Amino acid sequence: MIILHTWTTPNGRKASIMLEETGLSYEVRPVNIGKNEQFSPDFLAISPNNKIPAIIDKEADDGPLTLFESGAILTYLAEKSGRFLAPSGPARYKALEWVYWQVGGQGPMLGQLGFFAKRSDEKAPLAIQRFTDEADRLLRVMERRLAEVPYLAGAEYTIADIAAYPWTVAATTFLKDVLADSLATKPALNRWLQVVGERPAVQRGMAVPNPQGS
Amino acid sequence: MIILHTWTTPNGRKASIMLEETGLSYEVRPVNIGKNEQFSPDFLAISPNNKIPAIIDKEADDGPLTLFESGAILTYLAEKSGRFLAPSGPARYKALEWVYWQVGGQGPMLGQLGFFAKRSDEKAPLAIQRFTDEADRLLRVMERRLAEVPYLAGAEYTIADIAAYPWTVAATTFLKDVLADSLATKPALNRWLQVVGERPAVQRGMAVPNPQGS
Ligand SMILES: N[C@@H](CCC(=O)N[C@@H](CS)C(=O)NCC(=O)O)C(=O)O
Ligand SMILES: N[C@@H](CCC(=O)N[C@@H](CS)C(=O)NCC(=O)O)C(=O)O
Repeated sequence: MIILHTWTTPNGRKASIMLEETGLSYEVRPVNIGKNEQFSPDFLAISPNNKIPAIIDKEADDGPLTLFESGAILTYLAEKSGRFLAPSGPARYKALEWVYWQVGGQGPMLGQLGFFAKRSDEKAPLAIQRFTDEADRLLRVMERRLAEVPYLAGAEYTIADIAAYPWTVAATTFLKDVLADSLATKPALNRWLQVVGERPAVQRGMAVPNPQGS
Repeated sequence: MIILHTWTTPNGRKASIMLEETGLSYEVRPVNIGKNEQFSPDFLAISPNNKIPAIIDKEADDGPLTLFESGAILTYLAEKSGRFLAPSGPARYKALEWVYWQVGGQGPMLGQLGFFAKRSDEKAPLAIQRFTDEADRLLRVMERRLAEVPYLAGAEYTIADIAAYPWTVAATTFLKDVLADSLATKPALNRWLQVVGERPAVQRGMAVPNPQGS
């Protein structure tokens, strides 16, 4: 049994999609970051960086394993299940390349854009411009890649797509008014969004946590 | 032979330190990002995200392998050499957790702080405050970790330390005037900086590229 500490945000959904895709059994513990629950001592003991997602695998090979950082969780679950990440060779490293691109680029830059363009009452035009430009640049990098290959790592659906999907959805929803023009000119990215979004495990993972019911 | 495309910046130094630590033979190709060389078509064919570092391993198992993103490069070189990343078990995932923390948090947030507090002529106080606070928070996370264990992943020096070292050095040099107070109250972090910085391979890696000579 895996315990998933998560919330209704893109980084959390990477983990829930992966758990749904692999079929590993898991239980959800919502951490309401709107109520600062990520700073509670119990949660900090699991995730010292005060962020979701984090997991505890009670049945890991060497005893219970606690893990934070979505990219590390995706890699762990891929290696545990033997799925969505090749064990060696170029396919493995192309997938890791795009997972790192997502965690180091697409995620934090769209996150900062969300803060400066949407969440902050005070406005800093320099920052809004910088992160709008950077988000647009990153979406163009994605478009060029997906115009060449069906999935980010190449021929196969991998943890790179799982990492990038929730944040790309956020670009089309939460950040839509800022990024609509950029998205309108990205046919390959929109094709990929549709293909990935049709996967039943992705749909289930995107509905986690359900603060009312889960 | 591995070709390393890099520049005199923290993300590039992660790769050169790892190459020095493993003793793999490599050649340096400087990409002067101050002169926008990262946008040349030749470099974009290797690194479509227009960033250093990137490598080409001419002798990879399945033919020449091109790879960008420092975290993917560290993982690849660790798995190729069998060093600085355990092949399985908790030690492996603790190392990956902190590599992802570095690539998704420490790197981009110190990078944004550098832009808003140091490089930009126009000043956005909201952004300077946000990234100063975030940098301080991240350094506190590091301090708490390093007060418990000698290295980021635990008992052993790993790719997590190699990832975090160049950016932590940047906090004490390039960003010193912004972060001096934060750094002054971090004994464990300063002890770690000294221990890692005394490694000869780290010293050699931090001197790459040498735009005059290499
Ligand atoms: N690099 C981290 C980022 C995680 C992250 O930013 N999580 C956000 C929600 S999407 C969070 O927990 N924020 C609460 C906080 O920062 O206090 C990862 O990929 O897991
Ligand atoms: N997530 C990337 C970040 C790489 C990065 O930001 N590289 C900088 C230099 S430290 C760069 O090449 N900047 C040039 C540009 O963005 O145009 C990694 O870890 O490799």
